[in-house]
Amino acid sequence: MSKFSQEIQVSGHLIDSSILTKIFDKIMDLHGEFQVEEINIGKRKKDQSFARLLVKGKNQKHLDEILETVYREGAVSKIQQEITLKKSPKNYVMPDNFYSTTNNHTQVFYKNKWIQVENMMMDKCIVVKQNRAFCVPVRDVKKGDQIIVGEKGIKITPPERPREGVNVFEFMGSSSSSERPTQHIAKQVADDIYNTKKNGGKIVIVGGPAIVHTGADDAVSELIRAGYIDGVLAGNALAVHDIEYATLGTSLGMNVHNATLAYHGHRNHMDTINAVFKAGSIANMVKSKKLKKGIMYECIKNKIPFVLAGSIRDDGPLPDVITDVAQAQREYKKIVKDASMVIMISTMLHSIATGNMLPANVKVIVVDINQPTVTKLMDRGTWQALGIVSDVGAFLPLVAAQLRKKKSLR
Amino acid sequence: MSKFSQEIQVSGHLIDSSILTKIFDKIMDLHGEFQVEEINIGKRKKDQSFARLLVKGKNQKHLDEILETVYREGAVSKIQQEITLKKSPKNYVMPDNFYSTTNNHTQVFYKNKWIQVENMMMDKCIVVKQNRAFCVPVRDVKKGDQIIVGEKGIKITPPERPREGVNVFEFMGSSSSSERPTQHIAKQVADDIYNTKKNGGKIVIVGGPAIVHTGADDAVSELIRAGYIDGVLAGNALAVHDIEYATLGTSLGMNVHNATLAYHGHRNHMDTINAVFKAGSIANMVKSKKLKKGIMYECIKNKIPFVLAGSIRDDGPLPDVITDVAQAQREYKKIVKDASMVIMISTMLHSIATGNMLPANVKVIVVDINQPTVTKLMDRGTWQALGIVSDVGAFLPLVAAQLRKKKSLR
Amino acid sequence: MSKFSQEIQVSGHLIDSSILTKIFDKIMDLHGEFQVEEINIGKRKKDQSFARLLVKGKNQKHLDEILETVYREGAVSKIQQEITLKKSPKNYVMPDNFYSTTNNHTQVFYKNKWIQVENMMMDKCIVVKQNRAFCVPVRDVKKGDQIIVGEKGIKITPPERPREGVNVFEFMGSSSSSERPTQHIAKQVADDIYNTKKNGGKIVIVGGPAIVHTGADDAVSELIRAGYIDGVLAGNALAVHDIEYATLGTSLGMNVHNATLAYHGHRNHMDTINAVFKAGSIANMVKSKKLKKGIMYECIKNKIPFVLAGSIRDDGPLPDVITDVAQAQREYKKIVKDASMVIMISTMLHSIATGNMLPANVKVIVVDINQPTVTKLMDRGTWQALGIVSDVGAFLPLVAAQLRKKKSLR
Amino acid sequence: MSKFSQEIQVSGHLIDSSILTKIFDKIMDLHGEFQVEEINIGKRKKDQSFARLLVKGKNQKHLDEILETVYREGAVSKIQQEITLKKSPKNYVMPDNFYSTTNNHTQVFYKNKWIQVENMMMDKCIVVKQNRAFCVPVRDVKKGDQIIVGEKGIKITPPERPREGVNVFEFMGSSSSSERPTQHIAKQVADDIYNTKKNGGKIVIVGGPAIVHTGADDAVSELIRAGYIDGVLAGNALAVHDIEYATLGTSLGMNVHNATLAYHGHRNHMDTINAVFKAGSIANMVKSKKLKKGIMYECIKNKIPFVLAGSIRDDGPLPDVITDVAQAQREYKKIVKDASMVIMISTMLHSIATGNMLPANVKVIVVDINQPTVTKLMDRGTWQALGIVSDVGAFLPLVAAQLRKKKSLR
Repeated sequence: MSKFSQEIQVSGHLIDSSILTKIFDKIMDLHGEFQVEEINIGKRKKDQSFARLLVKGKNQKHLDEILETVYREGAVSKIQQEITLKKSPKNYVMPDNFYSTTNNHTQVFYKNKWIQVENMMMDKCIVVKQNRAFCVPVRDVKKGDQIIVGEKGIKITPPERPREGVNVFEFMGSSSSSERPTQHIAKQVADDIYNTKKNGGKIVIVGGPAIVHTGADDAVSELIRAGYIDGVLAGNALAVHDIEYATLGTSLGMNVHNATLAYHGHRNHMDTINAVFKAGSIANMVKSKKLKKGIMYECIKNKIPFVLAGSIRDDGPLPDVITDVAQAQREYKKIVKDASMVIMISTMLHSIATGNMLPANVKVIVVDINQPTVTKLMDRGTWQALGIVSDVGAFLPLVAAQLRKKKSLR
Repeated sequence: MSKFSQEIQVSGHLIDSSILTKIFDKIMDLHGEFQVEEINIGKRKKDQSFARLLVKGKNQKHLDEILETVYREGAVSKIQQEITLKKSPKNYVMPDNFYSTTNNHTQVFYKNKWIQVENMMMDKCIVVKQNRAFCVPVRDVKKGDQIIVGEKGIKITPPERPREGVNVFEFMGSSSSSERPTQHIAKQVADDIYNTKKNGGKIVIVGGPAIVHTGADDAVSELIRAGYIDGVLAGNALAVHDIEYATLGTSLGMNVHNATLAYHGHRNHMDTINAVFKAGSIANMVKSKKLKKGIMYECIKNKIPFVLAGSIRDDGPLPDVITDVAQAQREYKKIVKDASMVIMISTMLHSIATGNMLPANVKVIVVDINQPTVTKLMDRGTWQALGIVSDVGAFLPLVAAQLRKKKSLR
Repeated sequence: MSKFSQEIQVSGHLIDSSILTKIFDKIMDLHGEFQVEEINIGKRKKDQSFARLLVKGKNQKHLDEILETVYREGAVSKIQQEITLKKSPKNYVMPDNFYSTTNNHTQVFYKNKWIQVENMMMDKCIVVKQNRAFCVPVRDVKKGDQIIVGEKGIKITPPERPREGVNVFEFMGSSSSSERPTQHIAKQVADDIYNTKKNGGKIVIVGGPAIVHTGADDAVSELIRAGYIDGVLAGNALAVHDIEYATLGTSLGMNVHNATLAYHGHRNHMDTINAVFKAGSIANMVKSKKLKKGIMYECIKNKIPFVLAGSIRDDGPLPDVITDVAQAQREYKKIVKDASMVIMISTMLHSIATGNMLPANVKVIVVDINQPTVTKLMDRGTWQALGIVSDVGAFLPLVAAQLRKKKSLR
Repeated sequence: MSKFSQEIQVSGHLIDSSILTKIFDKIMDLHGEFQVEEINIGKRKKDQSFARLLVKGKNQKHLDEILETVYREGAVSKIQQEITLKKSPKNYVMPDNFYSTTNNHTQVFYKNKWIQVENMMMDKCIVVKQNRAFCVPVRDVKKGDQIIVGEKGIKITPPERPREGVNVFEFMGSSSSSERPTQHIAKQVADDIYNTKKNGGKIVIVGGPAIVHTGADDAVSELIRAGYIDGVLAGNALAVHDIEYATLGTSLGMNVHNATLAYHGHRNHMDTINAVFKAGSIANMVKSKKLKKGIMYECIKNKIPFVLAGSIRDDGPLPDVITDVAQAQREYKKIVKDASMVIMISTMLHSIATGNMLPANVKVIVVDINQPTVTKLMDRGTWQALGIVSDVGAFLPLVAAQLRKKKSLR
């Protein structure tokens, strides 16, 4: 046995979920060597598989690099080792060599047992406190926090590919394309929304102003009113356009019902912002009956939480907008916590933001007319995303029409 | 008065249609000079305007260049001059300095009177024969044909911008964008189709295979069956996919009704091609009841002419495909002759081909999910085109649904 | 003379800049009527033109709507009227019917003379204070501010189309396309940058992280070092990627010099953020010699101001990032104030933000590989923008190479 | 053992090339069952693996469907069976149930031994003649040809993923993205071109007219002159634009060296076509010294074969264009036969056409500025393609500059 070698093992649906393939790939990509010491592939598709490999590197550093890499793919060291903890030297600062998280389900070996990391997200550190482990973003790190360093004692479980059951994720794989039967996909998305809610799941919408421009505001409002949506994440623009549409019938001055330009239309956008400031808040506009329909209205009427995150391009922004982005991130996280499904519509900014906050097992649907946007979102580690390249102005009304046919869940 | 100057005049809706602006621009772009000798702008919006300008160049060549350019924008020489004719030296060859056409309405001054050029198209030459003038493509030029050279004696009338009336072209200008209320635009397109047919107009569809992939085959079939379409221009792929869908329910092996992959699906595409060859033609498949629905079926049943142009990427191609592209161009031209409206759907190749054959006053609607495709089509001189960036799988069913609500024209 | 009519006049390069055409268009779009009472078109291309029109509406409201619209295009009422001022009722709130600005050069008639509005931007209000007029965004409105309401007493001067001289804006019009000779355009952009600086102009770059991914970081660093850039506007991502590249050679873990994935590469992004927090700021990293090259380094070394605006999708964000977007907007505005040229590279978010802050006469160059992004930026009122659809990883090094050939300005 | 079961086996780099994973996936996708009877995974990365599986279906038809599917992935029946042959009933018609090919290396079991299929392409049939097997397209099928039906006796060998060695394909996987270090990728492509030629490989370019518009004509001409290119596949447009550029300096009337519009520029396109018809052919233009540079010139001077395929959108087309697409396909195939590398530049039409003709082991590089185009090409079965989303006007000159640095191969 080589001086610089170590035994690892891995179990689960190794073949089915390509886990073993990925581990072999990674070792070879890093120019390491391996021997399969033992392999036991499930004879039937639901059986678990098990493999034991001996991994070899050119030197200790090389071996460590390989091990670190394969551990991130779900392999575990044969001999369980405790995690190593180091204190944060000051607020916002992690110790050198801190463990940087994936968005997969993660356990850590602490005081001789495995504990699950809470609030799993990508590219964060793990803080251990009172026998619990938390995934923590930089700006929440406090001086003295006990933070995991190195790769020892960490076990990752990649999500398994959904295979059984009928949902829209099954038939599309992870590819995105505009060459799909749109009406059927709308029906599948509607079924998935319905079933998710029926099973007690939580659904969050992340949306951009194109929802309003393209004439899909009524469809989204209807989904909220019908009880399918548990949270709305957006920016200033969606809210302003939605309220402009609800109060003046226009979106950036264009009459949405007939696509003509309104008289004075150029003012409507700024008039809307002024109207909200005058009322003090969106909720006040609803209370005073100045706002009587639309996405924001339905959120307030139905007590669906929404968070409007500020951005540098905002006009206004509205009083309801959280202008501090670090604070807005915290509020977003509260909304997506425990979500089963997130539907991202025509907003790269807020969609990437939300994607970064999601554990890998949350279903994500991305709808956008621009294929590079869809691709970009799916490339950022949210591999479980379903990309739909379509026109939201036509697609969302189709989804709403399908849901209208179903038995009310209320 | 400068030695190198000439008086030109122009009339029409000069201001409204930007004609005068364009003429001024062109002179200045070419570093020429001009004086406005007389200008008479209509006091009311429907009044015709008239202007007389003195154009000056640095030398005769420069002046000629300027004149040639402004004549193409609708200006005419104050003194009418006869066209100059020269014989084609051999088949397919035009005399040097031949007049290269625009797609605008064009008249030529021949034997002391203005005659209208027939079959107007862009980038062709003009052949004069028996007191008639014809726009003729290179490969139809015969040795000895009398062809116009130079720019003398030619009068162009750019189409005037539609202003009054209710049609979808009015409100959108020439821009394309995905940020439009899709459902309303579908309604407007449906109204325009309906009114065009009601007024005796001829409507031609140019379509690509994405119609089938995206699940819009039934919608297009319905438009044909309902009598709205007078011709279909496509390539091999639309026909093969349409027949695969009509006979096997799939498009490239994907079940269109539920987006799953069919067993044996990879064979369906080639099986379909084989089935048509076996029958001998698409019409034979209809006759023998092997083909009972779809776009090709409706064309044959309703005696709507279609032309399938071959391309280098064809599988097969089907026996009905015209594999010689020069011949296919001739057949396309027969179909688009006298068309009032052409609807181009998800095919850059056939859309550009058709656009090149259309006079500037034909209404063109381009629907594609990829914005650069729409932009490219509109940039190629078909300025009258209306670009719609949408998902045809959702958009065309919306158009069909709108037309279903209307009183039958039959 | 109709009861509901008013005389307006307009002067300038009416034909050349399409101003008159636009005014006629707008009146007709609003179904108004007009008579041209007097028109005096410059006989030569540099002469000013003058026109006097009588505009008629169906009723006072209709007339007012038309007038309001044409005033925004540069027409002025024949009889000068004072502006109307109203007090802001509370902080952040404008009086009803406040005048909403364009991004054009604007004068207001106050105490019987024309004064110029300072800090001109789109979609803001105008506050008059101590005989000066200021363009003010919502969140800077203070209770009691005197704000212009209605459209009286306002004169707009649209920028005239550049015609003479040699700059890259001249030959491209306002269109964007990927079908242009890239190397020549890079040379033209370099010439424009050079000449702008030579003439004492101020140049600001707005950039996204694709600068680093695509390997253009060195080129941008070089432009800054050579003294061509007077300010950098970006977000957290550009800074993090730039510092990751400068310190570790990677961008999101990919080695930029050879496009391979680095060992441990996934950690580099978060490690970089941690390194900056550890140092306390980017400037501290430079001081302690931990950061020795790159865009951020050159900014600090050469005392070029930069502003990093926070966004909801930020990792970290870095201590140098302004997390409050309203504050970040204020800092952005300080940088773009008096800029002659703004170069926007691969970031829709920050580019739209900056575009909103610019008066219409600032030259804007937008470079992005995705055509819809370029189109979207140019559609948002920054009509003077030059859109370049290219690959920044190839384009910016070409620009830098051209500038290297020129005589140093230092 | 189930009534409807069969043993299959598979060998090769099962894990490394994901072959086993795909076989398991396919069985499960079709709702079949399997047992792993024997598995022997190579202990080292270069070892071959072997697996024996028992596949079960619900009934014979189901089992056959599964088997047919896994055979296409590289599995073979344990017991070798002879292929089944059937005669073509008439020209262009294959027998029912004909075997439809993949683009993988394929062997057939005929008269008790394995013979390799020649001219491998996707979606064709296999004709057996005089103990040899040929991949034959529909239009080359002759009445009486012996054609393979069913799936028996066919063995497919998917290409193995390149892992060792230094080439541009290694580090990019199969993904396409605009977020890559462009200059480095250009260097890698140049290295790959150089090494391919050095090793005696054959390189074919497939190109569209954007090569000329974007100013990359000189770069491509240089590659041909330097001996790197063995064939050029294009359409009418590339040739016309190239000759317009070479003779008049413009591309569609735009001066390529400075992006201005030429006087008379609109005529240049048609003038060029006329000039070629006048000369009789492109070769005649070279002979008579009318054409002295450019891509077409270099092809003729250096005796590099080129094929220009006609399309429905052609102006002219030139006398050198093959207007019959079935004939053009045959000529394309002659050029790509035995090619080691195909570089596809900015033309979806000709690239898909060529992709359909290539066996899976040919290296394919696709360069286009529009990501959906790159994605579409790579989705069509040519999985080995490397997609580069870049601006060809900047990218190709970078490649040419890299090759200029290398030692001449001549």
